[in-house]
Amino acid sequence: MRLIRSVEVNEQVGRRVRVYGWLHALRGMGGITFVVVRDGWGTVQAVAEVEGALAPLEGLSEESVIAVEGEVVASEQASGGYELHEPRIEVITPVVVRPPAALYKRQLKVALPTLLDHAVVLNRHPRRRAIFRLGAGAMAGFRAALDARHFTEVQTPKLVASATEGGANVFVVDYFGKAAYLAQSPQFYKQIMVGVFERVYEVGPVFRAEPHDTSRHINEYVSLDVEFGFVENHFTVMALLREVLAGIFDRLAHAHEEELALLEAELPVVPEKIPHIHFSEGQEVILANYGLDVRGEPDLSPQDERWLGEWAREEHNSDFLFVTGYPMAKRPFYTHPDPQRPGFSNSFDLLFRGTELVTGGQRLHRHQDYVAALEKAGLPQEPFATYLEAFRHGMPPHGGFAIGLERLLMQLLGASNLRLTTLFPRDRSRLTP
Amino acid sequence: MRLIRSVEVNEQVGRRVRVYGWLHALRGMGGITFVVVRDGWGTVQAVAEVEGALAPLEGLSEESVIAVEGEVVASEQASGGYELHEPRIEVITPVVVRPPAALYKRQLKVALPTLLDHAVVLNRHPRRRAIFRLGAGAMAGFRAALDARHFTEVQTPKLVASATEGGANVFVVDYFGKAAYLAQSPQFYKQIMVGVFERVYEVGPVFRAEPHDTSRHINEYVSLDVEFGFVENHFTVMALLREVLAGIFDRLAHAHEEELALLEAELPVVPEKIPHIHFSEGQEVILANYGLDVRGEPDLSPQDERWLGEWAREEHNSDFLFVTGYPMAKRPFYTHPDPQRPGFSNSFDLLFRGTELVTGGQRLHRHQDYVAALEKAGLPQEPFATYLEAFRHGMPPHGGFAIGLERLLMQLLGASNLRLTTLFPRDRSRLTP
Repeated sequence: MRLIRSVEVNEQVGRRVRVYGWLHALRGMGGITFVVVRDGWGTVQAVAEVEGALAPLEGLSEESVIAVEGEVVASEQASGGYELHEPRIEVITPVVVRPPAALYKRQLKVALPTLLDHAVVLNRHPRRRAIFRLGAGAMAGFRAALDARHFTEVQTPKLVASATEGGANVFVVDYFGKAAYLAQSPQFYKQIMVGVFERVYEVGPVFRAEPHDTSRHINEYVSLDVEFGFVENHFTVMALLREVLAGIFDRLAHAHEEELALLEAELPVVPEKIPHIHFSEGQEVILANYGLDVRGEPDLSPQDERWLGEWAREEHNSDFLFVTGYPMAKRPFYTHPDPQRPGFSNSFDLLFRGTELVTGGQRLHRHQDYVAALEKAGLPQEPFATYLEAFRHGMPPHGGFAIGLERLLMQLLGASNLRLTTLFPRDRSRLTP
Repeated sequence: MRLIRSVEVNEQVGRRVRVYGWLHALRGMGGITFVVVRDGWGTVQAVAEVEGALAPLEGLSEESVIAVEGEVVASEQASGGYELHEPRIEVITPVVVRPPAALYKRQLKVALPTLLDHAVVLNRHPRRRAIFRLGAGAMAGFRAALDARHFTEVQTPKLVASATEGGANVFVVDYFGKAAYLAQSPQFYKQIMVGVFERVYEVGPVFRAEPHDTSRHINEYVSLDVEFGFVENHFTVMALLREVLAGIFDRLAHAHEEELALLEAELPVVPEKIPHIHFSEGQEVILANYGLDVRGEPDLSPQDERWLGEWAREEHNSDFLFVTGYPMAKRPFYTHPDPQRPGFSNSFDLLFRGTELVTGGQRLHRHQDYVAALEKAGLPQEPFATYLEAFRHGMPPHGGFAIGLERLLMQLLGASNLRLTTLFPRDRSRLTP
């Protein structure tokens, strides 16, 4: 008896095989019963024509853990094109309580709070699974793109002695009676590691104690971080980001066709050259095209971003738009100013379909520039002592970016809430499951 | 002018190239000066025979960031076999303060506290770099082995509502005025995810508020976690672990030869079948071979492990030994008992060169077994409500293991302290750098 995964039935036509999984659905139809078994990768149906074959399932509900043996037969009616005939069913873990929502229905029709409360079980739904498998694919594509470019993976500490950006929105940990903080980003460490490996990336959790409960914010998320040395300016960083995004979407296109089809997701085309516009020109475009004068504002509003996204699609036929040169006033102290226009910065946001997806830029790299920047920001040097040590001992011009994994999935799938693309979201009022 | 990485000089003989990096060393020798530049991957020396070529470096110290142009010449004297002639040096970031220890010396001769205090800079030393590049290789090998076996990568929350193992050694976080905890392991979530993807792995930080300061413990480390369904018992898990370890060491052997040579590390051979011994037989071996009667003890001491490691090397010519069947009394409540000997468990430790490297086993999978186990352990059900929900809705027999990344490096390299193989260690008295 050959033990196979559900997705391997196509290679086994005419053979008897055994598939382990969960009882996904049981459908009667004129004397015939279809037993659909779901394993970690897909589903396959067994066709029971004899009453006795179903006896082991009597009184059991969906999600019972079972083994199904049967002969693989090609069938046009079967979803996937194959089914198991003359099945023999064995129950491994009987289940009598039905799931909080029907997992066998094409759509998981539950309200968001129910979905989140019961994510432990409802994430088994094929559409939920597809989302998080795309997430795994995005991580793999991210790493592959950077490995190919000689980057080194790092894992930096999440328990830190001082708040990354100066104090706001940081979680406090009781660290043996003293205060520690949860890293809001690996920013300082990834910069420090440029001094070690020159090109680094990290995939890991970041923690934001943001007090607002919006559809676009959660308090713990997965950040895909990159930092590297010897950049000319932020355009060098943007060029790498383009290649990394192309790598991610290429990976999804090639290794995750099924998930994309199931979720009816359309992958964006990453243009050979992503269009870019300076922040202040962007404000001019908004005035000229949409009639709102936002010139002089230090940041873009979500509406501004949507307009610029629309403009990029119309003007450049692109899902992506780099907005460069954000005012220094709205960027963190380590941001490198534009040497030509010091009120603006060598930083960028990447808009994807009209929403910010990635933030990045060139950082300061001279020790004296950090000392001056901290002073200007009214921050003391002492909490930044080890960060400053890296710059005292030589750092090249460098820059990087961070992609929020759940945000990437949200925008790719057109989800209405970031919680929908987060495995087990954390927000002000939610710490479980 | 071709911009290359230091390790690419061998492909460029006869050409003028440009290498960016840090001034690693400056050595005068009878009218000739060797300028060693270190980039993210290696070092290459430039040979300056003309006084003026060094002028840009006047008054500067090591770690200045520079660009060196020169013609690539094969040279038997040069480390690596190539050097740059007729160099032109450009200073990118001048540095005047010398590093806290000489990075150009073969060994970094500093006391541990100095090393840790100045890790931001001292991790630039080639031997320090090699350690963490091996770490990156171990993560890559781990993922590749599991990807090839149809596992899905997950990233589970680190902020949790209740302590994983029941309350001890857990960090408390102020979560908007309520208490949250830092995950001690992804144990519950990886099990829950077996219900979703059947086979999962995770690479991420775990947090242990262990109050003792030993050479083998730190308070935050990187855990390589695996969990999968449809195991027969813990031997299925051990078989997978063997393949994953073989994958990791294979990766290091093929992609990290240089780092291994630099660190004089000898890779272990992972036997086709790793020898295994039952916990109680292990105690008999200790009595028979080393004369100490530890029978009846519920756990192995570090000395017991060393003896068993020695015995495995002598008896089985193996660096590895599985000790199976640890007493249930010393294992967490979710551990599956041995059906034949219920006082013992379907769990294992893997000893590597006489020290525990991996812990794993089969877990309980029936809802009623969890209810009984919690009751037996004197734990209330309520904090485990979402964990229990997964089991109420059908979980297969499953198991898994966790490898500590820093521990793996420590034992592989024969380091005397776990802090030596941790990028920026956290212990009771250390939260920086």
